Parts: sequence; structure tokens; C-alpha cells
Amino acid sequence: MAVGLQAPTALYPVKGIRLSAAHSGIKQDSAVADLVLVEIAEGSSVAAVFTQNRFCAAPVTVARQHLLEVPAPRFLLINSGNANAGTGNDGIEAAARSCAAVARVAQVNPTAVLPFSTGVIATPLPDEKITAAVPALHASLHADNWLQAATGIMTTDTLPKAFSRQLMIDNQRVSITGMSKGSGMIRPDMATMLSYVATDAAIDPDELQALLVRSVAGSFNSITVDGDTSTNDACVLIATGASGVHVSNRQDDFVTALTEIFEQLAQAIIRDGEGATKFVTIEVEQASSEDDAREIAYCIAHSPLVKTALFASDPNWGRILAAIGRARVDSLAIERIDLYLGTTCLLKNGLPDSAYTEAMGQAAMDNEEITIRVNLNQGGDSARIWTTDLSYDYVKINAEYRS
Amino acid sequence: MAVGLQAPTALYPVKGIRLSAAHSGIKQDSAVADLVLVEIAEGSSVAAVFTQNRFCAAPVTVARQHLLEVPAPRFLLINSGNANAGTGNDGIEAAARSCAAVARVAQVNPTAVLPFSTGVIATPLPDEKITAAVPALHASLHADNWLQAATGIMTTDTLPKAFSRQLMIDNQRVSITGMSKGSGMIRPDMATMLSYVATDAAIDPDELQALLVRSVAGSFNSITVDGDTSTNDACVLIATGASGVHVSNRQDDFVTALTEIFEQLAQAIIRDGEGATKFVTIEVEQASSEDDAREIAYCIAHSPLVKTALFASDPNWGRILAAIGRARVDSLAIERIDLYLGTTCLLKNGLPDSAYTEAMGQAAMDNEEITIRVNLNQGGDSARIWTTDLSYDYVKINAEYRS
Repeated sequence: MAVGLQAPTALYPVKGIRLSAAHSGIKQDSAVADLVLVEIAEGSSVAAVFTQNRFCAAPVTVARQHLLEVPAPRFLLINSGNANAGTGNDGIEAAARSCAAVARVAQVNPTAVLPFSTGVIATPLPDEKITAAVPALHASLHADNWLQAATGIMTTDTLPKAFSRQLMIDNQRVSITGMSKGSGMIRPDMATMLSYVATDAAIDPDELQALLVRSVAGSFNSITVDGDTSTNDACVLIATGASGVHVSNRQDDFVTALTEIFEQLAQAIIRDGEGATKFVTIEVEQASSEDDAREIAYCIAHSPLVKTALFASDPNWGRILAAIGRARVDSLAIERIDLYLGTTCLLKNGLPDSAYTEAMGQAAMDNEEITIRVNLNQGGDSARIWTTDLSYDYVKINAEYRS
Repeated sequence: MAVGLQAPTALYPVKGIRLSAAHSGIKQDSAVADLVLVEIAEGSSVAAVFTQNRFCAAPVTVARQHLLEVPAPRFLLINSGNANAGTGNDGIEAAARSCAAVARVAQVNPTAVLPFSTGVIATPLPDEKITAAVPALHASLHADNWLQAATGIMTTDTLPKAFSRQLMIDNQRVSITGMSKGSGMIRPDMATMLSYVATDAAIDPDELQALLVRSVAGSFNSITVDGDTSTNDACVLIATGASGVHVSNRQDDFVTALTEIFEQLAQAIIRDGEGATKFVTIEVEQASSEDDAREIAYCIAHSPLVKTALFASDPNWGRILAAIGRARVDSLAIERIDLYLGTTCLLKNGLPDSAYTEAMGQAAMDNEEITIRVNLNQGGDSARIWTTDLSYDYVKINAEYRS
């Protein structure tokens, strides 16, 4: 089902990080993990970004409060199957009780625990199940459990999503491993549903936050499945320093490796997008501003008509043109626009390319991975986003999600 | 299939208007009309509004030019099955030749003919078929052919859409009859795909244009199926004056009747929306501005997750909440929001209503006609729009449209 995505292999442990996953009973299927604990070594730097949806979920509110009190949290507690969103004050208290359960077992302050939830919105979180599961969860923490953790945070995901990289800095080995989840309600306005990336490099907290913001911009903030921003989006970047190597955000090879992990994690969400049969890259070039480029890219990405044509492998590119034409970009000059499907030119200077044939369009559309490229020929800014098609299965998955 | 919509009955002829419909060969099925001619009596006032999509179709460009030269056109020539959009200069010439064919037969100037097209984008218009069909079309013009004309402009519509009203003004009978088409690519930024309304009242041209702009605001500009604005949207309002009754746009009973026709025509497009199984009214009240109210209404209406929940009759109202939360409204105050499904309160002051039960939500969702009402408790402005759900059939219709 997922487009060009395999289950993770070769996930390197990250010194200073231990993880565990278990079934607590939030999900009905007892064979499936729904609760994940991540332990972060003392002395680590931790950076986080959260959803910009005004209706943010209870765990987002609690995590933000805890981070204000304890900038370097010691535990992440993540449940799947229930988003604890739209649950009012009861939801806040349920999240707080979940953190307290970890704090008791681990002998830390409750504010050193950050809660995260993902799943159905507006249903009370059964935190007594979480509390009951925490002691065993804590006892099974291990550095090699990244795959189990990546599996435990899944909801409608068909595959766990995790990537890993090692590189040598100053003759010492540095590891970066990250996991993400998400498949629908994906148009992160900050980070995807949930993603956690850790390195054993040492990075100062301010630099880490800057690195996180920069990394999500080109990854999780450049993807969309359905334009729906989740109430629970969160992304956490951890630098434990346990490798003994100190890096700064000007260390090019480290930043490159980290950027690749973020891009792979973000792409994995799109490749596993609900009902996805295509992985689509949309590039808008030579715009007057990055905002203009992103507006046009998202207009194309969110058009149900473009998405159903992609699903049908139908080179009905008039729909792309109509989507560009309705973008809120005042300076749009139709007569300058070039439009490409892969390497096939559809439109040159706003007019149908004379060399174009339906067979060329069909060949481009038949691919599982498709690039739509728009050149506005106006300025120096650009944007690149990733998205999916709209299939029967998207409707099926979302019409049947609660039943 | 269509939600609460029947085929038109009792369409009153409008003095000064004659219509005809025929199969010209643009559509493959020879039993189906694809070409419509509307004759407008000399001395009529004609007002028109067109799509705001920057990639407007060739007939829109030509119709705008013709209107500049001849403010009171004598003929409307409408084809279905081909939008003549994205067709460059060839498309402009094809539209002009189609108008010329009518002009020859009817002995008028080509600029007194307005062309309209609807159907597949980016395919050359076979205007030789139109030219060949025009003489017979002209010979069969008749005042009683509104239903045939409404049928001839259909594309993926499952039913023709036309409404009619008669009223007495100064003891004289005045008729208003209108037709519309449209089912997908519906988020008119001015008017729907195509709509034509005529009255035999006499109305001054400037007043008629003002009346049209005001009428579309609360009808065609307040509907959405999929957020995709067509390249071919057009709406024409004709006042022939043939009844001998002169009305102004301050004549309340006439304006009320006209407004009802526009609302019925716009609602009909939603009721017959591609794959629609629900007719959904979204009301946003007590907003700080009308723009804010409309932004929130459209965020809900365009959310694929809200739309699939509506299709499933699933009271998963957390998705409505998430859609409101991502609206681009700076002043949004979650703690003031009340949310209703029909008469069932879901949220009061931003918190789940204590009296709400899943059974109440299910009962509200089981209806074929559903109202989602959001009270922002902030100001004095409001918006009301109509939309549909997102079903398997929407995907099917749009994935298979060209094949």
C-alpha cells in the first residue's frame, strides 16, 4: 500500500536514549502496542515544536507547561489510539496523571515527563490503563527498542517509520535516529502528528531549538495529505551528548545528516498517507516570494480534482492549471507560467506546449512517483512540498475510522 | 443520488426569451444534448459575472470582450462536454467561430453572441460540429424549452436544475425562470459553472448588474463541493422587459422572488454535488467580520476529514473542532465557541457540553440534511454556506471522468 516505503532496518541505538513499548488497552487489539516510553539521559538538550491548531490537545498544553518548568525533560510518554483532544479539563488532568505515574516509578518530578497522544479526537483518555501499564513499561526500557517504539506510536499508519544515520566527527562516531507517525489529518503547521529524533552528539539548547525549527521547515512543514492540521502535532529533537562529541548547527555534515533524517521521516508519512497510491512532489520555482510559491503548491496539493486525477493516472492537467489559477497570489502572470509533469512540458508561457502529446502525459502519470513543477518566471523564491493522491481508500479509511 | 432534489416541473416561459437544445456531437452519446441556444429579445437588459480564476477559459475571455462592445447581447450559445479552457489562442478562435455561426443564421453582429462552454479542460473545442448544428438549433427556438436547455448544459449533473416563479406587480404578471449546471469543481468565486436567469420585468442595466452581484453573493458565491474554482464559471441575468412591468432593485417582493430562485439554483448544485449523500448547511455566527465567518465556514466545508465523517454519518465532531482551529482567524477565542449539530449542542464556551451523548450526535448525523452551527460569540457578522460530504462516488466520478 505505502508508495516506495519499506519497514525500517538498521536502526542505530542512540547513547543516552532507552525506549519501550507495550499494549495498555487503549487500542482494542491486544497484539498491538499503544503506549511508548522514552527515557532521556540526564544532561541532554531537548527542543520541541507543537501544533499551531488553536484547538490544541490536552497533552500539548501539558507538555508546553512542563517544558517551561523543566527545559530538559527526562521522559516522553506517548500513547496511540486516543488523541486526548477536545476533552476539556478532564483531558488535562488525565495527561497530568499519566505523567505522575511515570514520575512515581522513575523517581523524577512529574514536570520532567512530557505526554503525547494520537488517535481519535474528543473521546476521554482512559489514563487508568496507562497508569497500570507504566511500571512494566519502565522496567523494559532498552536502547535497542527504536523499532518497537516506532510501531507503538502508529494509528492508521500501515508501516512504522524510522530512519537512522551514523557519521564520524573528530574521529568519533555520532548516531542520529528518528521515528515519526502520521497518515491522515496531515498538514502540519509546525511538525507532523508525532516525531522524535535523537542524537548522541552534544548540542547547546538554543542551537538545538534553532536546528529543529530549520529542520521541520523543509520536512514536516512541507507535507500535506488532506490539508487538515492535527490538534496533536509535536516534534521533539534530543541531543544527549553521550557520544562525547560537541557539534554546533554550523557543522555541515551533521546538519546534512540530520536534515536527511527529517526529510525521510516526513516523506515516509506521505508515502504511507491514507489511501496513497502516488508520492507527489510539487515544486514551484521563480516566485516573487516563498509565501506565493507555497500558496500555489498547496492549492495544487489540496485540489480534490488534481488528487483524483493523480489516483486515476489521468493526465488531465487542466485541473492543475485551474488550481494554480485560483491561488491567492495577486501577482500571478499566466502568460509567464511554465508547467511540467516530470520532464514533460505541458505549458510554456501560459500556453499549451506544441510538442506535448497525450501519450507523453500518460507516461508521466503512470509513474508511482510524480513531480509537478511550476515555473512562475517572476522572482527568486521557491517552494517544494510532498503530497499524495486521493483514492477510494482515503474515503474508506476516514469514513470507517471509528466504526 | 441527489439529496432532496427532483427534476424541474412547471417552468414558466419568460416573454422575450426563446431557447433550443440539440446534440452536436461534442458528447459521444447521441441521445444527449450538448448545445444550447438562448435568444434574447431586442431591448433587454443583460448582466453577467464570470469566474475569478486567472486561468479563465477562452469563452469567458470572448464573452467579456463581446459584452464590452455590445452591452445587450442577443444570443447565448452554450456547449457542454468541452470547457474550451487551457486551449490558448486556438480556443479563442474556436469560440469566435461558434459565435459567427450564430450571427450568420440570425443576422446579427458576432459580438451580439456570448459563448459559454463547460466540460473537460485542455481539449480542443470541435467548433465545426457546433457550426454545423447551429442552423437547426436556431430554427427550433421556442419559449417553452427551458427544461430542454437546462438538460443540454449538464455535464456530471444527474438532474437538470431549473426553478421558476411568477408574481403580480401592479396587477400584471411577471415571470422569473432560471437554470444552472454544476456538480464538481464547485467553489465559485463569482458564480457557479453556468447559470442563466431571465425575467420579463424591465430593469435598468446598472440596477440589473447590482441585483446580480447581490444575488450571487448569497447563492452561488456561498457554495462549495470541493474548493476547486472552475475556469468557466459564468452567471447571466436577463431582464427582457416584455411583460411591460418596470421594476427596480428596491422592489421587495420581486427581489425576494429573484433571491429565492438564485438560492434554489445554487442549492440544487450542492444537492446534486458529485457523489453527494448529504446536504450540509454551515452557519458561522457572531464573528468579528464576515471574512472571518466565511474563512471558518470554508475551513469546515473543505476538510476531507469532516466530509468523510459526514459521509459515514459519524458524529466524530472532533474533526469539526480541528477544522475550526486551523482557520486563518487571528482573533479566534476557543473559550467562547459554541458548536451545534442541528439543535444538538456539542461544545459550549469551547468545552464539551455536559448534556451531550453519542446517541444525540448519531441522531443528528443520520439526517440527510445537516446544519453545522458555530457561534463565535465575538461580534455581529455571520456567514452561511452550503456544501456536501465526500463519498466513494466523488472519487469514482472524478477518477473516471475522462475515461
